[in-house]
Amino acid sequence: MRSISTRLSSALFIGFVGLLLAAHLVLPLAVAEAPQAAAPPDPLPSWNQSQSKQAIIAFVNRTTTEGSPDFVPPGERIAVFDNDGTLWAEQPAYFQLIFAIDRVKALAPQHPEWQQQEPFKSVLGGDLKALAAQGQSGIAQIIAATHSGMTTDEFNAIASQWLATAHHPTTNMPYTQMIYQPQLELLAYLRENGFTTYIVSGGGVEFMRAFAEQAYGIPPEQVVGSRVKYKFETRDGKPVLVRLPSIDHLDDGPGKPVGIQQQIGRRPIIAVGNSDGDLQMLQWTTAGDGPGLAIIVHHTDADREYAYDRESHIGKLDKALDEATQRGWIVVDMKDDWSAIYPNN
Amino acid sequence: MRSISTRLSSALFIGFVGLLLAAHLVLPLAVAEAPQAAAPPDPLPSWNQSQSKQAIIAFVNRTTTEGSPDFVPPGERIAVFDNDGTLWAEQPAYFQLIFAIDRVKALAPQHPEWQQQEPFKSVLGGDLKALAAQGQSGIAQIIAATHSGMTTDEFNAIASQWLATAHHPTTNMPYTQMIYQPQLELLAYLRENGFTTYIVSGGGVEFMRAFAEQAYGIPPEQVVGSRVKYKFETRDGKPVLVRLPSIDHLDDGPGKPVGIQQQIGRRPIIAVGNSDGDLQMLQWTTAGDGPGLAIIVHHTDADREYAYDRESHIGKLDKALDEATQRGWIVVDMKDDWSAIYPNN
Repeated sequence: MRSISTRLSSALFIGFVGLLLAAHLVLPLAVAEAPQAAAPPDPLPSWNQSQSKQAIIAFVNRTTTEGSPDFVPPGERIAVFDNDGTLWAEQPAYFQLIFAIDRVKALAPQHPEWQQQEPFKSVLGGDLKALAAQGQSGIAQIIAATHSGMTTDEFNAIASQWLATAHHPTTNMPYTQMIYQPQLELLAYLRENGFTTYIVSGGGVEFMRAFAEQAYGIPPEQVVGSRVKYKFETRDGKPVLVRLPSIDHLDDGPGKPVGIQQQIGRRPIIAVGNSDGDLQMLQWTTAGDGPGLAIIVHHTDADREYAYDRESHIGKLDKALDEATQRGWIVVDMKDDWSAIYPNN
Repeated sequence: MRSISTRLSSALFIGFVGLLLAAHLVLPLAVAEAPQAAAPPDPLPSWNQSQSKQAIIAFVNRTTTEGSPDFVPPGERIAVFDNDGTLWAEQPAYFQLIFAIDRVKALAPQHPEWQQQEPFKSVLGGDLKALAAQGQSGIAQIIAATHSGMTTDEFNAIASQWLATAHHPTTNMPYTQMIYQPQLELLAYLRENGFTTYIVSGGGVEFMRAFAEQAYGIPPEQVVGSRVKYKFETRDGKPVLVRLPSIDHLDDGPGKPVGIQQQIGRRPIIAVGNSDGDLQMLQWTTAGDGPGLAIIVHHTDADREYAYDRESHIGKLDKALDEATQRGWIVVDMKDDWSAIYPNN
């Protein structure tokens, strides 16, 4: 009996170890792959249970379920997100303009002539209304003076330094923390479902690349934005790319589908924006032969963030809001649809 | 005894099933992940055992081995490949020019004026020497007439149709089979080692995107090339991107690092080219702070492919060959280093 008992114990032990190994290996796969009978963890916990959330999840399900008539292969699951007002805040001014103004102040000692010369004089005097009154040309001069002349590596260092140290004038938060928690969850949820998530924004591509990977998990090659012209030359015996004071591509409005075609080369199936500058990107995304989802973030929360739409100078949402209504696009009401705005708040 | 024996059998059976499951799951992982003691399969079977091959494998090993001083994280493992003469052949003319000439002939019935009008007259008369004598401006007119006016979708259909049906004048092979087998292996080997493989070519980006995924496994967003300007407009109630007869970006020579910065936004660590048009891309790739590898394909095989370098009008390799010698770049001798040229040959 002893020998049988020993053999039995050994067999049970081997069986136990085998099962343990099998369970260890099989169960996580089963959990990850099979739809669970019990309630799965909510992939979008900062999104309230709303029509917007249901519509997003339903779209992801029908485009990623094999056998579904709307199934889209992983490589073609392209989702594009505007940045200003869609992934991070944009009030009281685009953060990149605040960066440019800070750069004017930092560079002023090397440019005594700026004390008497517009638009620099207004910026240095803190008169942003006077700057605004000079319109696009004033802002273009500020951008040219602060965003060109240096190499791409130098610009990256300058932008990274500012992003790491500057604080928002009213929230006092670092700008890179004024990103939207519900959108971080949406980006992660889409990536987990085989989507590639791109930024397609009017902002400068190199400015965004300086923080997009850390803030959003979006690497440089998945950032599409406005560009200055670059010139390849040799400085101190090394090849460099110098930023020229001339716009190569303005990635706004009709420029967004153009930027998408240049850099991605396929039509997205999800587009997320918040302003009329995103309208053509939303139209382009929903005009393909297959499924296409358009989402607009509507800033309705004056208490936790900002409330603005049709009359705003920054992030004006007017025509795109009308078209969203006509075409049944998802309009996310920030106040009602999002239970949190910023991370860790 | 029977009951014990039954229990023993059951226990052994469970153990066996458990072990089988475990083995089934564990063993393939172990095979895939662990370095094998036995000789691993050659990742580059169409590359002869040469210095070039050894240097490529050594570079991949030291940039992908954790703990190596030259270790590069996967996201930063960018490899860029020229297309014409590097991934596929380029003689007796760039294949895209042959496509353009075929398009002139196909469109000629709609353009009776071309019979009397240069450069079309020369093309329609089969006098390519006369076309060449008209220089860049003649070719630019051919490209404008055949590559613009249509939407991006329409152009993709036209290019795809030609690529699927046209044959090379001397080999009689479809152009998409005149791709280099050793380079297909190198692309696959790099991707297996966590590299992202891009095309960075003077060819038209949309022309290359029409076949790059099928031929090389390179998706549209990983193709960088020359571009025409696009215009977003509405045709028949649908938003479209129309190709304009105007160059937006010439991705050749100093334009290659520019195209890389625009679209990828990080410096590659491997660059592969075959002509002076690749020189700046090779310089840029090897000028970073970390490791950088430059590879030049030298066309030395008049029997199996073509032999040309310093004096060639197409794919001229002169300055880059001198610089390769000075700087110890890898120069692949097609005749000696490659045991095969095209797939299935």
